[in-house]
Amino acid sequence: MLIVQKYGGTSVGGLDRIANVAERVARAKKEGNDLVVVVSAMSGETNKLIEYASYFSKTPSRREMDMLLSSGERVTAALLAIALEEMGVPAIAMTGRQAGIRTDASHTFARIEEIDPAAIQDEIKNGKVIVVAGFQGINEHGQVTTLGRGGSDLSAVAVAGALHADACEIYSDVDGVYTTDPRIEPKAKKMDFISYDEMLELASLGAKVLQSRSVELAKKLGVKIVAKSSFSEAEGTIIAKEQEGMEEVLVSGIALDKNQARVTLRKVVDRPGIAAEIFTVLANEQINVDMIIQNASSDGMTNMGFTIPQSELERAKKVIGGFNKDIGGMDFDENVCKVSVVGVGMRSHSGVAALAFSTLAKNNINIEMISTSEIKVSMIINEKYGELAVRTLHDAYQLDK
Amino acid sequence: MLIVQKYGGTSVGGLDRIANVAERVARAKKEGNDLVVVVSAMSGETNKLIEYASYFSKTPSRREMDMLLSSGERVTAALLAIALEEMGVPAIAMTGRQAGIRTDASHTFARIEEIDPAAIQDEIKNGKVIVVAGFQGINEHGQVTTLGRGGSDLSAVAVAGALHADACEIYSDVDGVYTTDPRIEPKAKKMDFISYDEMLELASLGAKVLQSRSVELAKKLGVKIVAKSSFSEAEGTIIAKEQEGMEEVLVSGIALDKNQARVTLRKVVDRPGIAAEIFTVLANEQINVDMIIQNASSDGMTNMGFTIPQSELERAKKVIGGFNKDIGGMDFDENVCKVSVVGVGMRSHSGVAALAFSTLAKNNINIEMISTSEIKVSMIINEKYGELAVRTLHDAYQLDK
Repeated sequence: MLIVQKYGGTSVGGLDRIANVAERVARAKKEGNDLVVVVSAMSGETNKLIEYASYFSKTPSRREMDMLLSSGERVTAALLAIALEEMGVPAIAMTGRQAGIRTDASHTFARIEEIDPAAIQDEIKNGKVIVVAGFQGINEHGQVTTLGRGGSDLSAVAVAGALHADACEIYSDVDGVYTTDPRIEPKAKKMDFISYDEMLELASLGAKVLQSRSVELAKKLGVKIVAKSSFSEAEGTIIAKEQEGMEEVLVSGIALDKNQARVTLRKVVDRPGIAAEIFTVLANEQINVDMIIQNASSDGMTNMGFTIPQSELERAKKVIGGFNKDIGGMDFDENVCKVSVVGVGMRSHSGVAALAFSTLAKNNINIEMISTSEIKVSMIINEKYGELAVRTLHDAYQLDK
Repeated sequence: MLIVQKYGGTSVGGLDRIANVAERVARAKKEGNDLVVVVSAMSGETNKLIEYASYFSKTPSRREMDMLLSSGERVTAALLAIALEEMGVPAIAMTGRQAGIRTDASHTFARIEEIDPAAIQDEIKNGKVIVVAGFQGINEHGQVTTLGRGGSDLSAVAVAGALHADACEIYSDVDGVYTTDPRIEPKAKKMDFISYDEMLELASLGAKVLQSRSVELAKKLGVKIVAKSSFSEAEGTIIAKEQEGMEEVLVSGIALDKNQARVTLRKVVDRPGIAAEIFTVLANEQINVDMIIQNASSDGMTNMGFTIPQSELERAKKVIGGFNKDIGGMDFDENVCKVSVVGVGMRSHSGVAALAFSTLAKNNINIEMISTSEIKVSMIINEKYGELAVRTLHDAYQLDK
């Protein structure tokens, strides 16, 4: 089998841990697999470099940031290759450029445009384990680019896609995807399998195992992801295309996102385009608006509610302040959270959302906003009921069975 | 003027020091100069990375070491460019590859083969300060190479040569080249000027300001070097072609090298080629033999003496052990040092060497070995007299005047 493995910052967060990774890689190689290993920077390194840069500037040039930040992954890649060679496993380290990862020119959040796998394929033929510095590529002008937070996952999935690898194993300190956060609900179960779409919803709803961008890319390229822990021998969770038997599973997981704030704009002038204006300005400020509710009222005024990440609340207040001529008043509520029920089974089964609403009602939890998609129901509730809601929903959908 | 500046590890050894360098660069730019700045890794970084690698292997792959070690200079280059931009000085950081530094394929001690200055020249035309990551280049296969210890000096001189820069300023924590080590002889004077050849001798004899390799390259390319301190405003020392008026100066400096060991081989079989054999094997082991003395004796046997760096003594013992059939006996003496008198004036003046011998004799210092070149006299003496010899010679040649 041809396997791409990716080890995150915690998994390579010290020399002993890199040695541990080397042993895992060596074992997989000895089992007869061809291996490409993508590595992140040692945990803490990237933040240290960002701190260094902030000593000099609050708005450092993005091009220079990329040269700065791409150095951490190179160090890990070189060290892992050295460790493997010492164990008698032929290995070669490659930068993003050497691995053929070409991106667009958007420094610090570049998109992968193309992978030229020739160099990697040559070295696979030479029997080598290829260790690729994750998180980075090169643009058409030969400048180093980075892919943004979680970019190493993206490197791994893209390389796996270009090589038509049999699997892309993503290693972290968590041994798979759970029905919900085990710190909230100890009865949470690790899933053996989850579809791309469900994982996408869970990732965007706050589950931290995988980033939405890499799941999206995996779905597009048809790459089978296996989320595993580098600290245990547990089986992990497979993320792949929906399977035949899957329809029997109604709901696969419950997610909780506490980084939510609710904004209510009262008595907004009901002229055409006012909503578009407000949301355009928020978007220009890179403030992600999530749920939106708008009620037209009879007096030519409208009330508008939406949620944003709590961490962006201060900036949002400033932006919205610019509209005070058009708005009668505004409220901001930080004490909210978002609970979501995710499952492909919802598509074909009715009553899934209703069960969520009635479960919360039975527990006297008021639902402030609701948003649904084909495979999820998200509800904004008072923050203090977040954990309770997760546990009762987990029970209601019998996810511990 | 077009100036290449190079800042060593101590000069960029902390964020405050990088800020200090940025101010110096900004000032030189404001004075109307075009600037290319070559930087080393922050002091301690390279050693930290070497330690990391040694955790995994005593003989790490040189190719991987290059990917590892080249990361430190990239960090400094990016940070300095960010600091300059923040001060309103347009700047751009370049890796060795981006700066057009092409080397041969000898990983960890690559030689520069060619500089393609086009990218640098373009950015100079754009009015930018170019910050180049020193110590590194790229070979014909696109792999990162490093130039060995002191390689950033070499990068700076090579870039200065390719750009026909007006000067290459090498900044360290020392404010120039002294007549001898001021820690040994407080009366040591900073020189305003020294010729390439004298600097070459001084560098190879233990003066630490500049590496012989960069002085050699500067001589070859006709690059004027100025050795300066980044911690003071002192003028520094110019290293350039010998000048007309210089012949008046007999001696320019005294050097002391304590990393010396003397090897004496007694009763060596006097057959043709035996010396060549011994020295070939030593050379193959990368052991640098310095002075050699051989006396043929009457009984078909010969005594042979030579010096090597003390740090290579153990390896030398092993190598020479292989010749025990041809050698009657061997002695090793670590308690020796080499004192050297350097000056282009020796070429045209007689009696310079004689003054050195008589000065040491007057102080009852026994000279064990002598070696001379056109512009230097080196003497091996007992190590405990090293500092005394330096001071009395400094006096004898009136270097404090």
